[in-house]
Amino acid sequence: MKELAPDHPEWTQEELFRAVLEGDQAALAGLGMEGLTKLVMASHAGVTTDEFAESVAQWLRTARHPRFNRPYTELAYQPMLELLHYLRANGFRTYIVSGGGVGFMRVFAEAVYGIPPEQVVGSSLETKFELRDGEPVLVRIPEIDFINDKAGKPVGIHKFIGRRPIAAFGNSDGDLQMLQWVTAGSGLRFGLLVHHTDGDREYAYDRESHVGRLDQALDEAAERGWTVVSMKDDWKVVFGDGK
Amino acid sequence: MKELAPDHPEWTQEELFRAVLEGDQAALAGLGMEGLTKLVMASHAGVTTDEFAESVAQWLRTARHPRFNRPYTELAYQPMLELLHYLRANGFRTYIVSGGGVGFMRVFAEAVYGIPPEQVVGSSLETKFELRDGEPVLVRIPEIDFINDKAGKPVGIHKFIGRRPIAAFGNSDGDLQMLQWVTAGSGLRFGLLVHHTDGDREYAYDRESHVGRLDQALDEAAERGWTVVSMKDDWKVVFGDGK
Repeated sequence: MKELAPDHPEWTQEELFRAVLEGDQAALAGLGMEGLTKLVMASHAGVTTDEFAESVAQWLRTARHPRFNRPYTELAYQPMLELLHYLRANGFRTYIVSGGGVGFMRVFAEAVYGIPPEQVVGSSLETKFELRDGEPVLVRIPEIDFINDKAGKPVGIHKFIGRRPIAAFGNSDGDLQMLQWVTAGSGLRFGLLVHHTDGDREYAYDRESHVGRLDQALDEAAERGWTVVSMKDDWKVVFGDGK
Repeated sequence: MKELAPDHPEWTQEELFRAVLEGDQAALAGLGMEGLTKLVMASHAGVTTDEFAESVAQWLRTARHPRFNRPYTELAYQPMLELLHYLRANGFRTYIVSGGGVGFMRVFAEAVYGIPPEQVVGSSLETKFELRDGEPVLVRIPEIDFINDKAGKPVGIHKFIGRRPIAAFGNSDGDLQMLQWVTAGSGLRFGLLVHHTDGDREYAYDRESHVGRLDQALDEAAERGWTVVSMKDDWKVVFGDGK
């Protein structure tokens, strides 16, 4: 928001945006879903898809995680990277199915996870085709096209992939319906949950967390035969050296 | 519609459906977009995605084209199949980008065109995740999700593939914006239009046709450097022997 603000003088007229630009943490914490949506629409729409991808790339080149003091692109879990590599080496095609915005994820998914743009399924805004001075562009408009979370995940997988995967991996209740749908298919199926249990090396949270809550999926894991991995007990390394 | 009618006694109460079931050609010709949409919603929604795929497969096994007296799956253009094969043999990934329903196309695209489900971009109805007696299913609901035609085609390509193709092939004004967007990208680009000029072996139509009109795209082909192929003059074979 801060980087985009110089192009948006009208933002200073709005209390919500002013609070964000002044780094008012209390205001940020109290945003709620409506306020968050407003922020995303303001900062992620109104530009062409190419411009948006460039601004994401620019942000990723410079932003660092405040606690781990690394670029976000170096915070992929090492065991996840090894799993993706292992699956691909054995003839699987791997996808990311994220609640995050697909236009954001696609910018770095190939470099970080080895997953090309067409194998990223995510949430999206509407886009609109336009001729600008005769030049065809796709413009991001401030309307939600698709929310790829919870019951939306199997819908998104069906929409983009058109067939049912045979394995799915999640870490929150946002992945519950995806795991149900994937593991209910015929033949051998595999479902796995990563349980964030490591407050030292990463974070520890589950049933009470406001973000990434893992509750119902944890209850269903046992009865449905999903593997539960404890980050603290089962992962030798959390973040690798990026190689 | 006729095959589904026994499960839908309520259709006999509706004039539109009755006309269709009685094969009333005049009524069919006068349907208009609203009537057609109503037919598609009635016949393509209300079932699970698996049930729909099965009913498409069943229809394809038995239906024959009235003029060519062949199954529809044996009516792919031979030069198109050869082109797809040639592109794939040279490291390209090939996609179908159709105005037709993606849930319909995906059932036969792999067998007929060698294009797997995840490489079919098309129009779609909304689907909804449900647990039916504990069994997770995706149900097709009678609301349009996306129309992959005209200005929707570049939008659909961006949505599903997330990058700009370097070559595109079309045969109607429904492909105009796709061709504009694809061939406006940087580097070498290729655009091609098939002109249906062969009333003997297939059909002859262009600027005045109500279905598959080719008018504005034909005008732009010259100025934008798109290749125009005449089916009559340039295609030695239209329909092959299916091998």
